[in-house]
Amino acid sequence: MATLRIPAHVPAPSEDAEQLHKAFEGWGTNEQLIIDILAHRNAAQRNSIRKAYREAYGKDLLKSLDEELSSDFERAVVLFTLDPAERDAYLAYESTKKFTSSNYILMEIACTRSSYELFNVRRAYHARHKKSLEEDVAHHTKGDHRKLLVPLVSAFRYEGEEVNMTLAKSEAKILHEKIPHKHYSDEEVIRIVTTRSKAQLNATLNQYNTSFGNDINKDLEASDDEFLKLLRAAIQCLTAPEKYFAKVLREAIVGLGTDEWALTRVVTTRAEVDMVRIKEEYHRRNSVTLEKAIAGDTSGDYEKMLLALVGAGDV
Amino acid sequence: MATLRIPAHVPAPSEDAEQLHKAFEGWGTNEQLIIDILAHRNAAQRNSIRKAYREAYGKDLLKSLDEELSSDFERAVVLFTLDPAERDAYLAYESTKKFTSSNYILMEIACTRSSYELFNVRRAYHARHKKSLEEDVAHHTKGDHRKLLVPLVSAFRYEGEEVNMTLAKSEAKILHEKIPHKHYSDEEVIRIVTTRSKAQLNATLNQYNTSFGNDINKDLEASDDEFLKLLRAAIQCLTAPEKYFAKVLREAIVGLGTDEWALTRVVTTRAEVDMVRIKEEYHRRNSVTLEKAIAGDTSGDYEKMLLALVGAGDV
Repeated sequence: MATLRIPAHVPAPSEDAEQLHKAFEGWGTNEQLIIDILAHRNAAQRNSIRKAYREAYGKDLLKSLDEELSSDFERAVVLFTLDPAERDAYLAYESTKKFTSSNYILMEIACTRSSYELFNVRRAYHARHKKSLEEDVAHHTKGDHRKLLVPLVSAFRYEGEEVNMTLAKSEAKILHEKIPHKHYSDEEVIRIVTTRSKAQLNATLNQYNTSFGNDINKDLEASDDEFLKLLRAAIQCLTAPEKYFAKVLREAIVGLGTDEWALTRVVTTRAEVDMVRIKEEYHRRNSVTLEKAIAGDTSGDYEKMLLALVGAGDV
Repeated sequence: MATLRIPAHVPAPSEDAEQLHKAFEGWGTNEQLIIDILAHRNAAQRNSIRKAYREAYGKDLLKSLDEELSSDFERAVVLFTLDPAERDAYLAYESTKKFTSSNYILMEIACTRSSYELFNVRRAYHARHKKSLEEDVAHHTKGDHRKLLVPLVSAFRYEGEEVNMTLAKSEAKILHEKIPHKHYSDEEVIRIVTTRSKAQLNATLNQYNTSFGNDINKDLEASDDEFLKLLRAAIQCLTAPEKYFAKVLREAIVGLGTDEWALTRVVTTRAEVDMVRIKEEYHRRNSVTLEKAIAGDTSGDYEKMLLALVGAGDV
């Protein structure tokens, strides 16, 4: 469930566009007005506002936001304003670049979006970058990481709830032959994780637990092995994404300094999807609400934007 | 260019459906009438006929064809009547089964269809088989064949004509470091072949020729190595599909007995796409027209159906 809060009466896109244009005019920028509009419209509504803005002022709204805003607040507003598939294509593209590369973000996009959403990311990647997502991922990775990431971003998993229990048993056995012996990048392990439907993978992991008496996560306990950590995170994204995201948020907030990029990414990509469950999980694990944690660690317009997206305060 | 010939005046789908229904009635089946209709309608028209047939007679046209026809003629009519994406999903599914498995057919579908067509095959595979294409391919292959085929069937290649010449040079060099040393299944070779756009791959192979003085096909000269043969065929399908198909047709026709499955597959899948070029290539290489070769090697209604699809005779 989404935390995004949309007012009962939503103005016409042309009206929103006009208000935004006013917010940019004059000496200062009216940041609160920008938040009041953009943080309270769904993807379709934001697209309509962008269209209306271009028609009225001959300019992409994102360009104006880029000129008027700065720093973490800018990134949060721009990322949220983007269409989800475009946004993911943008994040994925960044993640294949030298100084911003992140195998985790690529994995996260590949494993937590639906099959059709992931395909739409690949289409948006073509349109935006004149290349395919998988060719950039393959080009910027190697060895075991490539073996895992390329099929993850290329997958079009079946999404039905049907489960084949015979298969679940035989594949749980395969995993148990490989994982405890630390053959984490074995081609069969990668095949199972990268191609099976989420329902089927869940059944296999339950079967692993039933047949061998312990959770696969115990056998994948994070060590210093970078590949193992990524594999473990992928399995969590595929089977319990809210736990994965709650953990990413926690790590972004605690410790010395805040990881604003991670915080912004998770809030902007999940506000319209499953942020309600992520917040519950966050609260359960950390005995503090996500709103409180964000408020304690951020400030100014950036704080206001994030809090609006996670559903704090009034519409 | 297609060899499919559609009459200037096409009857309404309901009329075609009624004629087909008549063709099935009484003692014998009117095979000529079936050919006259189904071998002379495009994919959209055939879909409309199937829909009209179901509405009028409460039965799938394919089921009636299956009951009324038999053997090679049945397979040709049924395959051609299917929607292209559905047909490919059906052929791919057969190709992962024990007794009909074929890595070549999987490769052929992956490499000769456009990116969107291949995606539609994957969608049709979900709908028809309640699984993903890539999970069946991965499950039924292993080792090097899996390493090549899974990314091939999962690809969503960029289809623009843009070419990066710097990349073409550096990747030609990579290929030349691997191929002459027989490292055919090297992960870099597979990455280049499975992820680059067809335009980019073409530029890389031209660069290979320019820089190193010989065609990559020379360095991939077919030996008894099954993987090498498949890799070579994949490269041909990606860069010169008409040559690949002309060769498959030739091999299906010459020799002891005819390989009707291959003949039927190529004719039914290419009649609406590029059969004109395949015929030219066939004629050029074999000094006999494809029509003549088919007529000399097949007979009866099956022959008539194939000849109609390759554009022989009147509409």
